[in-house]
Amino acid sequence: MTGSPPAPFTADDYRARMERAARAAAEAGLAGLLVAPGPDLVWLTGYAPTAPTERLTMLVLAAGRDPVLVVPTLEAPDAEQAVGAPPLTLRDWTDGTDSYAVTAALLDKDGRYGISDNAWAMHVLGLQRTLPGSAYASLTDALPMLRAVKDAAELELLAAAGAAADATFEEIRTVPFAGRRESDVGRDLADLLRRFGHAQVDFTIVASGPNGANPHHEVGDRVIRPGDMVVLDFGGLKDGYGSDTSRTVHVGEPTREEQKVHDTVRAAQEEGFRAVRPGVACQEVDRAARAVITDAGYGEYFIHRTGHGIGVTTHEPPYMIEGEEQPMVPGMCFSVEPGIYLPGRFGVRIEDIVTVTGEGGRRLNNTTRDMVIVD
Amino acid sequence: MTGSPPAPFTADDYRARMERAARAAAEAGLAGLLVAPGPDLVWLTGYAPTAPTERLTMLVLAAGRDPVLVVPTLEAPDAEQAVGAPPLTLRDWTDGTDSYAVTAALLDKDGRYGISDNAWAMHVLGLQRTLPGSAYASLTDALPMLRAVKDAAELELLAAAGAAADATFEEIRTVPFAGRRESDVGRDLADLLRRFGHAQVDFTIVASGPNGANPHHEVGDRVIRPGDMVVLDFGGLKDGYGSDTSRTVHVGEPTREEQKVHDTVRAAQEEGFRAVRPGVACQEVDRAARAVITDAGYGEYFIHRTGHGIGVTTHEPPYMIEGEEQPMVPGMCFSVEPGIYLPGRFGVRIEDIVTVTGEGGRRLNNTTRDMVIVD
Repeated sequence: MTGSPPAPFTADDYRARMERAARAAAEAGLAGLLVAPGPDLVWLTGYAPTAPTERLTMLVLAAGRDPVLVVPTLEAPDAEQAVGAPPLTLRDWTDGTDSYAVTAALLDKDGRYGISDNAWAMHVLGLQRTLPGSAYASLTDALPMLRAVKDAAELELLAAAGAAADATFEEIRTVPFAGRRESDVGRDLADLLRRFGHAQVDFTIVASGPNGANPHHEVGDRVIRPGDMVVLDFGGLKDGYGSDTSRTVHVGEPTREEQKVHDTVRAAQEEGFRAVRPGVACQEVDRAARAVITDAGYGEYFIHRTGHGIGVTTHEPPYMIEGEEQPMVPGMCFSVEPGIYLPGRFGVRIEDIVTVTGEGGRRLNNTTRDMVIVD
Repeated sequence: MTGSPPAPFTADDYRARMERAARAAAEAGLAGLLVAPGPDLVWLTGYAPTAPTERLTMLVLAAGRDPVLVVPTLEAPDAEQAVGAPPLTLRDWTDGTDSYAVTAALLDKDGRYGISDNAWAMHVLGLQRTLPGSAYASLTDALPMLRAVKDAAELELLAAAGAAADATFEEIRTVPFAGRRESDVGRDLADLLRRFGHAQVDFTIVASGPNGANPHHEVGDRVIRPGDMVVLDFGGLKDGYGSDTSRTVHVGEPTREEQKVHDTVRAAQEEGFRAVRPGVACQEVDRAARAVITDAGYGEYFIHRTGHGIGVTTHEPPYMIEGEEQPMVPGMCFSVEPGIYLPGRFGVRIEDIVTVTGEGGRRLNNTTRDMVIVD
């Protein structure tokens, strides 16, 4: 049940990604890219330092130049062993020396660079201080779609992660809810995700009754009762790629209003999904889902955007939100997850990961979107 | 064996910390502080968002003004519940609006601000763009000692974490080493740290034989053999405060050279510890430890600084390194961890957490620093 083995990303795959990124940077008028530990670096090189610290690690990419990874001397042996290391030159620096000067020597002194969103502020400030003529833009501002379009191997890994999340839902719907704490069901979710092959569990939301009205409630001590709506939203990383799905279940039979809210969210999710089509702006997914909820009179209770990208993280660009005019492209993967949140009462959210195909969208989550009744 | 319960930090404690930080900022000529999710925010407010994302969360502190926490609307309910929330005003922003404009409205447009080292680069760039006259310095550059001096309750928590790490060492020295993989012993270490009350395990280094020559080797598949030196270095968070200790053990009897290297590191650790005294510059700890190793002819094989601070993280300022002229102050806590690393052969490191007292240093790790022989 752990799906197919991870796709074998090779040094050549990483080299191709680095070349593509450097080219995209040049086309965007940037002198290059500065890539910090985290998802960008994992995606480009396969390298993840044991724990990011204040010690500077930074990949410098520029079109027509060999990529250089600036690393603390202490961590150079680990970096050398990373899968993506072969095409990389390592430039190490030792405690007590100036890591910004080492990095600045690789940069154009008046160049404009894209830098990982999650690079530490102290590092971008250090580079600005060392090269006052240089300029920086966050990668999401400069190249928002850099990691957004997945290749075939990545799509396979995302589909396998989605299938594992679906298997988790099929199991969780059979466990007892009434009389147990949200945190108990949350632990079940985490155990199931791991059993179905997740190495990392990022979130296990179990939001029962009024807690469901807070979209980011995780789990609490509340004991789930008969008559509760329960929002379940869970995901993590399996073989390096993300899962993220939500279903809203009910303990026993729902009221007519609860059923109506659930039907509305379900229809909104369906319309959001139908809006997925190459060449169409991302915001159209949000508009399509939101229109259903607004028309049903719940517009003010849909208090978040409709979706976010997924890949080597469970939360990344592109965003399905009003104002995002980026067109959808085959290979993009993102969530479609409208919700209605009635303060003090309950919430409903339904979420699938969807990938853009040549014709429209394909769901990577395929459990029922009917309201499931649990015990 | 889980030690005393966590010290009860109250809203008043957090208020006092925020006031102290705002005052320190003003004294340093800053208009205020911008505090991102992570250790600074935990220390100042007790609040840790479930998962830091690209959505801006930022505490704005300025002397004489009420602290304001900028949060995504989605996360406002969680932030309101945080222990430190009472003295805070929340300013929430909704997806699709400009979080930098919301934050900038709280800032002096030509002010210079200290910002958390680990704030995301995209956020500091967003603020620079929104307020071109403003300036930023990393908290470590601006107020390096902000969290460095611990109060009595914090020292108690650090001592309890140290005692739990010591209990872990007393157990691990009794397990079999020869014939098992480093990763097996690493798992034992993690299990023991949790058994002795750690909620989070940050690292479990088991570096046997030649792997010991890489100070940042974690664990690998290498099977430990009779005659191996094995560097053990482990720690994490117990009740929100860090542990970090290293001992180097030997499988069976050491050679004369191995004993000499171990004796040298032990003497260096002792001299580093003896250099701990209020009013003395941090770099003196490094100099004292390094002199012993250099005098013994191993200077070029001591390839890292002698220590780092510890508190709500296992790795933070102050650093015990040449050039750090900051004087030691009672209540500071840091590691003293010299080592010798002989490439291709073996390594030795001995590490205690030490706190500065009125008279000198007090060790928070108290297991034997003799070379322990394991099976």
